Amino acid sequence: MAQNIVFSNDIEGTLDNVLAAKSFNCIAVIVDDNTARLVLPTLHSSALEKAHVITIGAGDVNKNLDTLASVWTSLEQMGATRSSLVVNLGGGVVTDLGGFAAATYKRGIPFINCPTTLLTAVDAAVGGKTGINFNGLKNEVGCFQEAIDVIISTRFFTTLPERELKSGYAEMLKHGMLSGHDDYERLLQFDFTAVDYDRLLDLLKTSVLIKEKIVRADPHEHGLRRALNLGHTVGHAFESLALRRGKPVPHGYAVAWGLVAEMVLSHMQLGFAASDLHQLARFVSDNYGAFYITCDDYDELLDLMHHDKKSQHGEINCSLLSACGDVKVGNTIADDDMKVALDIYRDLLGI
Amino acid sequence: MAQNIVFSNDIEGTLDNVLAAKSFNCIAVIVDDNTARLVLPTLHSSALEKAHVITIGAGDVNKNLDTLASVWTSLEQMGATRSSLVVNLGGGVVTDLGGFAAATYKRGIPFINCPTTLLTAVDAAVGGKTGINFNGLKNEVGCFQEAIDVIISTRFFTTLPERELKSGYAEMLKHGMLSGHDDYERLLQFDFTAVDYDRLLDLLKTSVLIKEKIVRADPHEHGLRRALNLGHTVGHAFESLALRRGKPVPHGYAVAWGLVAEMVLSHMQLGFAASDLHQLARFVSDNYGAFYITCDDYDELLDLMHHDKKSQHGEINCSLLSACGDVKVGNTIADDDMKVALDIYRDLLGI
Repeated sequence: MAQNIVFSNDIEGTLDNVLAAKSFNCIAVIVDDNTARLVLPTLHSSALEKAHVITIGAGDVNKNLDTLASVWTSLEQMGATRSSLVVNLGGGVVTDLGGFAAATYKRGIPFINCPTTLLTAVDAAVGGKTGINFNGLKNEVGCFQEAIDVIISTRFFTTLPERELKSGYAEMLKHGMLSGHDDYERLLQFDFTAVDYDRLLDLLKTSVLIKEKIVRADPHEHGLRRALNLGHTVGHAFESLALRRGKPVPHGYAVAWGLVAEMVLSHMQLGFAASDLHQLARFVSDNYGAFYITCDDYDELLDLMHHDKKSQHGEINCSLLSACGDVKVGNTIADDDMKVALDIYRDLLGI
Repeated sequence: MAQNIVFSNDIEGTLDNVLAAKSFNCIAVIVDDNTARLVLPTLHSSALEKAHVITIGAGDVNKNLDTLASVWTSLEQMGATRSSLVVNLGGGVVTDLGGFAAATYKRGIPFINCPTTLLTAVDAAVGGKTGINFNGLKNEVGCFQEAIDVIISTRFFTTLPERELKSGYAEMLKHGMLSGHDDYERLLQFDFTAVDYDRLLDLLKTSVLIKEKIVRADPHEHGLRRALNLGHTVGHAFESLALRRGKPVPHGYAVAWGLVAEMVLSHMQLGFAASDLHQLARFVSDNYGAFYITCDDYDELLDLMHHDKKSQHGEINCSLLSACGDVKVGNTIADDDMKVALDIYRDLLGI
């Protein structure tokens, strides 16, 4: 069953319509400290007025079992049943944890996602991945369960810091590259120095529907869905290295840099066009700068890649493109090839 | 997708066949203290020899979040991935909790159920309900996820106490009544004073397939699956009252007594045949005795029924039969009617 994804800046009207169409005996809104303070008070939805509010701590550090148990308890205390509804209003922590809580409370009650960041709208809110971190491992526990509705509005994004916008945009760039040359080109023309939010909503619609189509074909990530991992094998390694250095980088930035390295590999192994690679490198360099590495970091980076969650037998595994719109999943990468790709990544981004 | 259900007393051969047909990078067997001691050492399966054993505490009191987290941790420590397998070897606590752990570890890895009690074989092991108790509420948290295979053998049942056998048999009786008059009649002829295990396996096959068919039609319990609640509205109230009295009764016994009371209601409201009702009452009285209540207990019992998990708006709700094989779900029962039914239940069972 396809998720119902609504793109609208009239979020109250949309919420009221969606909620009026179904009959729920009670509604819980899950927010974090930030969306409780900054977003919830700006929503004048009559349907939400009677809702119970469940507030969780903001930040990935709270995406854990204790918070999950506290949400289950709150649902119980308000008397939620399978005829109740959960509305997740926030970023990825809220949609991932709130979705998992709803998917498992009384063996599953329906939930709606209202993402408040671009990254969440284009990534976590759609596609049914829910979960929490466990024993220090990201998304170690969770399940696949789709929100009945996803309501996407750029209204929340106008107050996001540029860094946050760009972080989400990198995932859009990835979707564009998976879709085809036209979508990709359109994305490269976006101007972050004068953000046009209507244009962003248009691009976002296309982007979310690309993801939705891939998820629909392979909801439980047995094959094609791994295409969405484009840029993430190298990206995750950069992200982890940055964390170890004590200087974390936004997820999307790591993905943007990872895309450059993985398009180098795509060029080397599948003939991805050099001109497209250079165009990508320029866009990334202009908007995201570069993640600084030297050849002294290679062994540590490769070690991280060998231990990536998506690695099946300890090999480095990437989704690569022969051209925009033409993905091949499950490519095994030899260590030496990865080192060459990192060399060229550094050249391209002027490190 | 239908579950693969195998009925065989050659459990090692079946397990080896099932495991040989698929390629898993590691296997975890979840057992409880009892099955670790009494069952696991009797299984000479070559496929299981290399398996990691995860032992949990026996009994419903261990079906909780702490045990669940310990199973996730054990899976992590053995390096389980989505290419690994969990084998649940035990009663309902093991299949419910082990199934939930597998369904949520890394967003879901496959699991097989090998029930070691009749009640679990006919009830918990088939149909995809997984879960744990939470905040003192039974099965408050969980999900619907079916085992890829269920391997049912009566070999384990030969050492079960008669009470355990009869407890499971009550759920078989329920399935027979849901299926039709012939299945029901066959079940009433079973002789517990000289148990024929081959005959039991035959009856069990029919019974499990009746459940499977109902689950298949309504996996997430939106309608028809509630038929499986037959006998349970009154049965759960008896079970809870017994617990409060400090004299717990086996689940199946409570279901058997509950079936009598609910067939009285079925007779009163839907014309269920008096002869079938009397036949049932005799079988239950002969094999299960009676749950002793007086009219002083009625208010407490009705209160328990109003707060049953399956109650949607605080009303007493029962699945009832107009005849064997003809179920009607979602019947609202007035308090006075329930009291009359309890009066007649006492008459029929000679209380």
